[in-house]
Amino acid sequence: MTRAFNFCAGPAALPEEVLKKAQAEMLDYAGRGLSVMEMSHRSAEFVAIAARAEQDLRDLLGISDDYAVLFVQGGASQQFSMVPMNLLPAGGVADYVNTGQWSSKAIKEAQRFGDVNVVASSKDKNFSYVPSQSDWAPSKNAAYLHYTPNETIGGVEYNFTPQTNVPLVADYSSSILSRPLDVSKFGLIYAGAQKNIGPAGLTLVIVRKELLGHASNAVPAMLNYKTFADNDSMYNTPPTYGWYLAGLVFAWLKEQGGLQAIGELNQRKADKLYGYIDASGFYSNPVQVDCRSLMNIPFALADDALDRVFLKEAEQAGLLNLAGHRSVGGMRASIYNAVPEAAVDALIDFMKDFAKRNG
Amino acid sequence: MTRAFNFCAGPAALPEEVLKKAQAEMLDYAGRGLSVMEMSHRSAEFVAIAARAEQDLRDLLGISDDYAVLFVQGGASQQFSMVPMNLLPAGGVADYVNTGQWSSKAIKEAQRFGDVNVVASSKDKNFSYVPSQSDWAPSKNAAYLHYTPNETIGGVEYNFTPQTNVPLVADYSSSILSRPLDVSKFGLIYAGAQKNIGPAGLTLVIVRKELLGHASNAVPAMLNYKTFADNDSMYNTPPTYGWYLAGLVFAWLKEQGGLQAIGELNQRKADKLYGYIDASGFYSNPVQVDCRSLMNIPFALADDALDRVFLKEAEQAGLLNLAGHRSVGGMRASIYNAVPEAAVDALIDFMKDFAKRNG
Repeated sequence: MTRAFNFCAGPAALPEEVLKKAQAEMLDYAGRGLSVMEMSHRSAEFVAIAARAEQDLRDLLGISDDYAVLFVQGGASQQFSMVPMNLLPAGGVADYVNTGQWSSKAIKEAQRFGDVNVVASSKDKNFSYVPSQSDWAPSKNAAYLHYTPNETIGGVEYNFTPQTNVPLVADYSSSILSRPLDVSKFGLIYAGAQKNIGPAGLTLVIVRKELLGHASNAVPAMLNYKTFADNDSMYNTPPTYGWYLAGLVFAWLKEQGGLQAIGELNQRKADKLYGYIDASGFYSNPVQVDCRSLMNIPFALADDALDRVFLKEAEQAGLLNLAGHRSVGGMRASIYNAVPEAAVDALIDFMKDFAKRNG
Repeated sequence: MTRAFNFCAGPAALPEEVLKKAQAEMLDYAGRGLSVMEMSHRSAEFVAIAARAEQDLRDLLGISDDYAVLFVQGGASQQFSMVPMNLLPAGGVADYVNTGQWSSKAIKEAQRFGDVNVVASSKDKNFSYVPSQSDWAPSKNAAYLHYTPNETIGGVEYNFTPQTNVPLVADYSSSILSRPLDVSKFGLIYAGAQKNIGPAGLTLVIVRKELLGHASNAVPAMLNYKTFADNDSMYNTPPTYGWYLAGLVFAWLKEQGGLQAIGELNQRKADKLYGYIDASGFYSNPVQVDCRSLMNIPFALADDALDRVFLKEAEQAGLLNLAGHRSVGGMRASIYNAVPEAAVDALIDFMKDFAKRNG
């Protein structure tokens, strides 16, 4: 068996060590005679797995006891509605920044629940930059301010954390755990698992406890953060296997030296790839330089008629999932934590060779 | 490695053949160099896995094209709110039958969204039977009739399908795929995966297409069945690994001879265990005989002071997860499709020996 280099934007590559451990334990966890996915979520074994995962995540991100960590379902797309259902009171207004397709979807869902004020948008330049906060137009009394620190499709990332006096809410799906993060600046952080956390089907929510318990009685139990906080995310059966795998990923991250170390490695990977793209004269990245994403690097070929050949030859070379999002086309290399530096080196070597042959 | 016999009510035992196949493919699916959980849900490989799973399910249950099959998240508990959000119009009334804890939870959630009429309840006798339909008091113009064909906690199962002129909605979480089922009698069937389908975190919804598209604009995209139906359940990233495992389970079920064959095996397993319990003079099952569950068999010991010893010795004998639900105590053996007849035989042998030593 040869493992390919996988640049998928999500569901994304997982650390090979994690997959090997899951494989070894698939039929028999710790000599108990059953798979983790066959365990009662209320068994001592699974409760220990779940608690260990939460503690490792708290250690990695330095999450204080002022925050609840919730393991929920439905992906970021479900959070787009859960956030206003829980944090936007009747008659209130929520502030949103629009920097791309995911921001736009979050805004559209929030509009079902109340007044949404878009404080700034980069749609004027095809979502290729982050508007400077000095140009934003916030509401006077917003219930919260929502933004998308990293736009997975556009490859645009904030190089600052917004300053605000209202609870700051962030969709960290594609950049959480990519480098250190000061959680204390946030009211609520959510992230779909399928990039830097684990398999699809698990969603993390990190929420300041004082924000819990304000949802109206019309909010379903399964969409109320308090239900999850009050029941250790086990009001009903959680996605146990995804939770277990997330725990293996968190343990792996600690072994790699934590977020400082993985952040330095990620920066080196990104610097290499952006450096080559900019110097190539054949490839180009459309994003304003000071807000290029550390995790998702879109790029175009000098001649887009070559896109299909590029993708086909890349796949033959064991470099998978380099197509850009279907809505924008072109190429995209997602270089999450589990994508090794060797993958980036191999990609650059391939890109160099392809440019030489087709330039 | 020794595999134990696992009587967990859910997350439940999976077929050993399924786990072995998943284990073998964990790092490299079909020579593609990556795990199924690392694949884009929009890749040709995963789309084929997903379509195959749906087709196998349609084959097993004989589901016609009049129905959409949806792969969603959130468990049955989220369906408790999605059903009324999609099927109960403003000012309408929904009929519910209350036969246990899961019915009760479904009723409680539905009450957030409109008028709920409980047509019958077996609470008077501790949920130990199913009220005869001739005693039900249905509404004149209910939007739908909801019932719970099998109560996982109480071990109570309907021995009939309710007759009604309104759409019939059923929480089939703990009995779907246990024997043949005439889907054409239903408006909507939902089922959490973690009993007879696959790992927790996946939920199946089988819905008559004419019931789609009537939700109000206030319903979030992720809670609207139409979103899933219109996008092959890939509006956002689905729980891909759970979907893949469900597909392996469906293929395994076909290899076992389909629902007729597995239903006969399940009946034999249940007959053996109920037969022994009734004859033992030491164990007892509290459920009215004509509505005993095929899948979940609660039982009490002659002296409940022996419960802990029973559970401890059973575990030492490799018979796991026999404790009753924490809300009712006692014992419960869940004997889903993946629990082999040998497990039931081993359980009965153990119960006999225990009764002899303690009777």
